[in-house]
Amino acid sequence: MVKVNEKRFINSLNKLREFGAAGIGKGVIRPAFSASDIEARNWIAKLMREADLSPVFDPVGNLFGLNGSKSILLGSHSDSQPEGGWLDGSLGVMAALEIALSVKENGGPPVSVVNFQDEEGRFGVTTGSAIWGQNVSLKDADKYTDITGITLAEARKAMGSNFSDFISPDIFTGFIEMHIEQGPRLFQSEKKIGVVNSIVGIRNLKVTFKGEQNHAGTTPMQARKDALQSFSLFNETLNSRLRNVVTPQTVWTIGEVSLQPNASSIVPGVVNFSLQWRDPELTRLSKMETIIKDTISEISAKTGIEPHTSQVLGLDPVEMDRELIKALENSAEEIVPGEWINMNSGALHDATNVSNLIPTAMLFVPSIDGISHAFGENTSDDDLIFGLRVLARSIINCT
Amino acid sequence: MVKVNEKRFINSLNKLREFGAAGIGKGVIRPAFSASDIEARNWIAKLMREADLSPVFDPVGNLFGLNGSKSILLGSHSDSQPEGGWLDGSLGVMAALEIALSVKENGGPPVSVVNFQDEEGRFGVTTGSAIWGQNVSLKDADKYTDITGITLAEARKAMGSNFSDFISPDIFTGFIEMHIEQGPRLFQSEKKIGVVNSIVGIRNLKVTFKGEQNHAGTTPMQARKDALQSFSLFNETLNSRLRNVVTPQTVWTIGEVSLQPNASSIVPGVVNFSLQWRDPELTRLSKMETIIKDTISEISAKTGIEPHTSQVLGLDPVEMDRELIKALENSAEEIVPGEWINMNSGALHDATNVSNLIPTAMLFVPSIDGISHAFGENTSDDDLIFGLRVLARSIINCT
Repeated sequence: MVKVNEKRFINSLNKLREFGAAGIGKGVIRPAFSASDIEARNWIAKLMREADLSPVFDPVGNLFGLNGSKSILLGSHSDSQPEGGWLDGSLGVMAALEIALSVKENGGPPVSVVNFQDEEGRFGVTTGSAIWGQNVSLKDADKYTDITGITLAEARKAMGSNFSDFISPDIFTGFIEMHIEQGPRLFQSEKKIGVVNSIVGIRNLKVTFKGEQNHAGTTPMQARKDALQSFSLFNETLNSRLRNVVTPQTVWTIGEVSLQPNASSIVPGVVNFSLQWRDPELTRLSKMETIIKDTISEISAKTGIEPHTSQVLGLDPVEMDRELIKALENSAEEIVPGEWINMNSGALHDATNVSNLIPTAMLFVPSIDGISHAFGENTSDDDLIFGLRVLARSIINCT
Repeated sequence: MVKVNEKRFINSLNKLREFGAAGIGKGVIRPAFSASDIEARNWIAKLMREADLSPVFDPVGNLFGLNGSKSILLGSHSDSQPEGGWLDGSLGVMAALEIALSVKENGGPPVSVVNFQDEEGRFGVTTGSAIWGQNVSLKDADKYTDITGITLAEARKAMGSNFSDFISPDIFTGFIEMHIEQGPRLFQSEKKIGVVNSIVGIRNLKVTFKGEQNHAGTTPMQARKDALQSFSLFNETLNSRLRNVVTPQTVWTIGEVSLQPNASSIVPGVVNFSLQWRDPELTRLSKMETIIKDTISEISAKTGIEPHTSQVLGLDPVEMDRELIKALENSAEEIVPGEWINMNSGALHDATNVSNLIPTAMLFVPSIDGISHAFGENTSDDDLIFGLRVLARSIINCT
């Protein structure tokens, strides 16, 4: 096992939080390409040099600390949500840096470090790693805009001209990303470590139900084509059908709903809504899609409304690398015997994109009360250190 | 029966449409106190003089054409919705004017005419008649604002200083308002006339369901407090319960729904919605209120969300005057034997307010396809004329 300096690790993690520190608890505001994000990345580049790594920014702002020889890649991202927590992404970067520094001081296998840019999707979805992982081209991504209309191409200028070409993935043997779980499972089951089997796939659909806008006083119930009532019946019918095909790891969400004209005295003529579903298995994602589409057709016909559905967009589930999983399982069993579990990731991560290029794995530490993407996000120091130890042990196991 | 000039009536009605004519079909844009509204009222005042009536504007802009002796009052309103039809209100005013003119020419009982202001509620609800009917004071109503922030007090200045005091209701024996149905019942059943028994009561409630905003990927289904899912379950449960207590004349509507944060990847934390229900019977309105409140409590407890409900606001149902109803029924049976029905009004009308002061009744003519509050609103000339004849006959029957 690489001997790590746990106190230094916790200190560095708290130091990183000072870039963009905000809000209650340990909140940070450090969106991609903001001043605090660029400052944090420059500070991390300095730490990389202290660990005898060569810091290199690629064109999209992904920061690599290169060991110089073929090495395992560790890391995550240091950008945050518009209102984010101090650990989301930062944890994986600072754990990787601590391990690289410890390898320099105490010996160990060669380690490189990565700090991806815009994982939180100011411009796209896991933007920096998606470009590196060839899920999208830089040319296409440069046209993405944030909610204020700024393009990625414009935002990248905040980095200055201090960047090199894209890094070849061939110099890495694999990638391990340590992250907070962002959900309640480890915390509620009082486990210390989650070894990720797969990152769920996700599918998104936008649906419009077009009924008939009418006077809410003079239109009898049986004469209505109330788009909201159709939507509600669709939702209940879908819930009862999906319950027969899902596992406890499946989730589905209607997060967005808007009505037209949205007035208390008018029978809703139109309802627009989003439907998102996630599952670790591709076949189940597809089966759910069939059920969703069938239910839309059926309820539309039954209630006399006209449905419109968007193209289904999404990312397929990604299996983590079996050998790296085994290395993490062995490490977890050594460090926290009986207190770790295998699980799937319900959230997307940079690891999804990196798995396109090289063997990839992830480990999770608990999120207190499952809170994430909020100032209140936190993990106990003990659990952070367990995560660091498991990661430090795993790179011995897998090399 | 007062002998009326049907061709002149149809011509006058079309002439009125020229004030604010807009849109497809026979649409008009003539909201209260707009230039086209004031011009239309001045033109109607001129017609009143031609019928030997004395035109008088009261302080809120209600225009009375006074016969001088104790008389039956006929009329409605000539203001329109922001995008309205040519008959809503106008029909009752122009029918009243035609009858008054016919009485002058051919003899008949004394008739006065009224053209209420802002029935369509640019500022309140049936504003002009509500003030005259003492459901609200002019002082209070003057503070009402339209959606651009203009107060009624400011808008009234468009009338100039050409107005007198409020007219005493004691000079009228009763009020009959002829109106389009604004719903599909007469049209679908191919009847010519609806004699109104009562105008429904209405109750409005605003509800908030507060659940827990969460990550849509990492929050398992059983750990969610999804405010939208609670809302949907509430809606379905309420529907099944209300079906046991309502009549075909009862309506209930959820017309307004908004989610927070309303994002496709976030479990909805809050849903705000409106709930409106209407029924001709006070006891049923109250019974529905109890069911609604009980269902909110029950679904909240079951799904772990926190409900907040506003004060319930509304207007009680109003019975039309038995003697005037009888007069209308007899007229309808003479003019269109077997082709009329008794019905309730699901929409509010000026008659609701006037019934506070004097015996009041209403008759409806069919709306093609039930369309109203839209440019496409229309009624066949034949049906308009049947309505005119029934009204003209009824004032003989009731005097």
